[in-house]
Amino acid sequence: MKIESIDFFYLSMPEVEDIGDGSQDSVLVRVRGGGLEGWGECEASPLPTIASYVCPMSHSACKPVKYAVEGMELKSIADIQKVTQKVHEHSFDLLQADHTLSGIDIALWDLLGKYLEVPVYELLGYKKSYPKLPYASMLFGDTPAETYAKARTGRSQGFKAVKFGWGPIGKGSAQLDTEHFRAAREGLGVENYLMVDIGTVWHDDVEKAKERVAALKSIDVYWLEEPFANMALGAYQALSKYNIPLAAGEGCNNYLQASAMMEYAGLEFVQIDTGRVGGITSAKRIAEDTEKRKLTYVNHTFTSHLALSASLQSYAGIEKDIITEFPFEAKSLCEEMTVSKIQPNTDGWITLPEQPGLGVEINKKGLEKYIVDTEIKVKGNVIYQSPDF
Amino acid sequence: MKIESIDFFYLSMPEVEDIGDGSQDSVLVRVRGGGLEGWGECEASPLPTIASYVCPMSHSACKPVKYAVEGMELKSIADIQKVTQKVHEHSFDLLQADHTLSGIDIALWDLLGKYLEVPVYELLGYKKSYPKLPYASMLFGDTPAETYAKARTGRSQGFKAVKFGWGPIGKGSAQLDTEHFRAAREGLGVENYLMVDIGTVWHDDVEKAKERVAALKSIDVYWLEEPFANMALGAYQALSKYNIPLAAGEGCNNYLQASAMMEYAGLEFVQIDTGRVGGITSAKRIAEDTEKRKLTYVNHTFTSHLALSASLQSYAGIEKDIITEFPFEAKSLCEEMTVSKIQPNTDGWITLPEQPGLGVEINKKGLEKYIVDTEIKVKGNVIYQSPDF
Repeated sequence: MKIESIDFFYLSMPEVEDIGDGSQDSVLVRVRGGGLEGWGECEASPLPTIASYVCPMSHSACKPVKYAVEGMELKSIADIQKVTQKVHEHSFDLLQADHTLSGIDIALWDLLGKYLEVPVYELLGYKKSYPKLPYASMLFGDTPAETYAKARTGRSQGFKAVKFGWGPIGKGSAQLDTEHFRAAREGLGVENYLMVDIGTVWHDDVEKAKERVAALKSIDVYWLEEPFANMALGAYQALSKYNIPLAAGEGCNNYLQASAMMEYAGLEFVQIDTGRVGGITSAKRIAEDTEKRKLTYVNHTFTSHLALSASLQSYAGIEKDIITEFPFEAKSLCEEMTVSKIQPNTDGWITLPEQPGLGVEINKKGLEKYIVDTEIKVKGNVIYQSPDF
Repeated sequence: MKIESIDFFYLSMPEVEDIGDGSQDSVLVRVRGGGLEGWGECEASPLPTIASYVCPMSHSACKPVKYAVEGMELKSIADIQKVTQKVHEHSFDLLQADHTLSGIDIALWDLLGKYLEVPVYELLGYKKSYPKLPYASMLFGDTPAETYAKARTGRSQGFKAVKFGWGPIGKGSAQLDTEHFRAAREGLGVENYLMVDIGTVWHDDVEKAKERVAALKSIDVYWLEEPFANMALGAYQALSKYNIPLAAGEGCNNYLQASAMMEYAGLEFVQIDTGRVGGITSAKRIAEDTEKRKLTYVNHTFTSHLALSASLQSYAGIEKDIITEFPFEAKSLCEEMTVSKIQPNTDGWITLPEQPGLGVEINKKGLEKYIVDTEIKVKGNVIYQSPDF
């Protein structure tokens, strides 16, 4: 089929708060062809991401992302893979391009699956989609007492794994952090997985991390996530010598960066956001590498069930990699994005839908109120205007 | 002084061609404070770069770049360094942010230099600015005969160093590439430096590079530039074992990436574009590292003499690193950007201006005709409109 249109929707909550909650806005991508619609989501700042699709060319290696995809033929997996190659060949000097590509790539996989009437994980070569164990992702409380209360809530809701992150952690004293770590473990109980996410606060300062190692070990942390910035390879490598299981990768915006993190950062868990890394095409290639390297692949998903389905496809068939990030406190925008949801079963496990494509239906009616009316005009011509559902 | 305004100018040639010439458009940044103006340039796609400055916040780590700089106090170097820290703390999920930061950082150094009445290289701690030897950067010809003719021209113009890149190279057979390499050397003569730039065409395919190693050695190539994509660390590392001097780094958009390339890519030459890497602040930190690691720092500059001055400051005081990229075939937009130019002396060497700041004056009158009239409207409010000079 021929791709007939590609539309970007800038969606947002009426008010965006200055908190570590990525579900407050969204870039939704719709791809139309053959009488069907495919949907994808970029986990990215909407305006620069849309600008990267529509901007005028700067030179041969700094073209808008639309160059790689407008009017293309879509019949096979190879056609989708060609889009990534074209973006990297023609837009490698456009930094934001990988984030823009991500939503397009996801939408193309959704569309191809619908066209061929198979779930995306089958297109990716997996015979089966294995159940995954979702963990609840929570922000640390403002005080250790609040962190404790949040952990209790997670436990009472039946979560077997909880990740705490962001909020005050890493910014104050090691002593205060230790109190938060212990509060989380006490609230959650010893029988459940507990993960800690520093949110890159220490940038590349290994000393800050070393001061917390003993406390993290004492709460038997399942992983320590993003103590440092993306690509701070030396800092990660140095910390990995202290036998703390490290998790990172959500900041990678392409396969090569993820590959570098796998090779040099001493990670045990490789966390990939399909909405940032270039979509399902890059995510699947990374998942194959984690298998070869005997590392564990984990999705990074903090937004909608569309993003969740997209993020699970790339490692759906890897039976041993069971841990899954699951949007637990998402804002109403992301809650309302899809008609159908990927719900945990009574044992707390989730499985991908068996419907064609990504298997989730977009809630067009419900999303209308979140559209951020946007217009970009260059030389008197409107090159972007918010589309209709 | 207080920063009173920060303005972004989207400038472009009337027609942008699909060729590897980055001087066809520009993002110029003006920072005003204390009755003075500082100027910087982002080597980046204009529209996404501007969007990254003005876009609404997505969450605490995905804020517009303006958050880090609007209304700030500028009195010392530390104030400028704080901007980089703030961007990385508050905008690390906004991929394009580093390119936006680059022009701002350069403009802040220019302004601080003017305010304190010293050249930027002195602010950076260098006592002296050493002369540099510019090389002519040329595109390979369409045929080996054309490449030969271009090399002859470079030689007859008195260049002691010429770099050939892009065009057909790397895309056809190894035999054809070999003919281009030999034509370049024959045309240039054995007494001059000859560099070859593959422009990342092989992405991460080491085999393609290996097929050309013998030919590159036979022409005594001074360096082989960007055989692979930015961050293809494994491919670079593998190729470095073949004793070909490797150059790369222009694709790095922050210090951490450059640091990873220095540590793991087996480079001998570290090429930094101040307009991409986060500005002079990051570039200087990288220059310090190249000294410690006994590598050679080289600027990447293909545009204006504003960009050239900015790119030279960070290694102006490193006497041994003499090689400098110099814009030789820039389009009229970049030619006309500055009133003053950094011209080679009779021996072919260049030296930084001794005037305060970057020491180049912007040609406001001449640039008016290149302004690309642009408007971005969100929720009915104009959040960006092309400013006046």
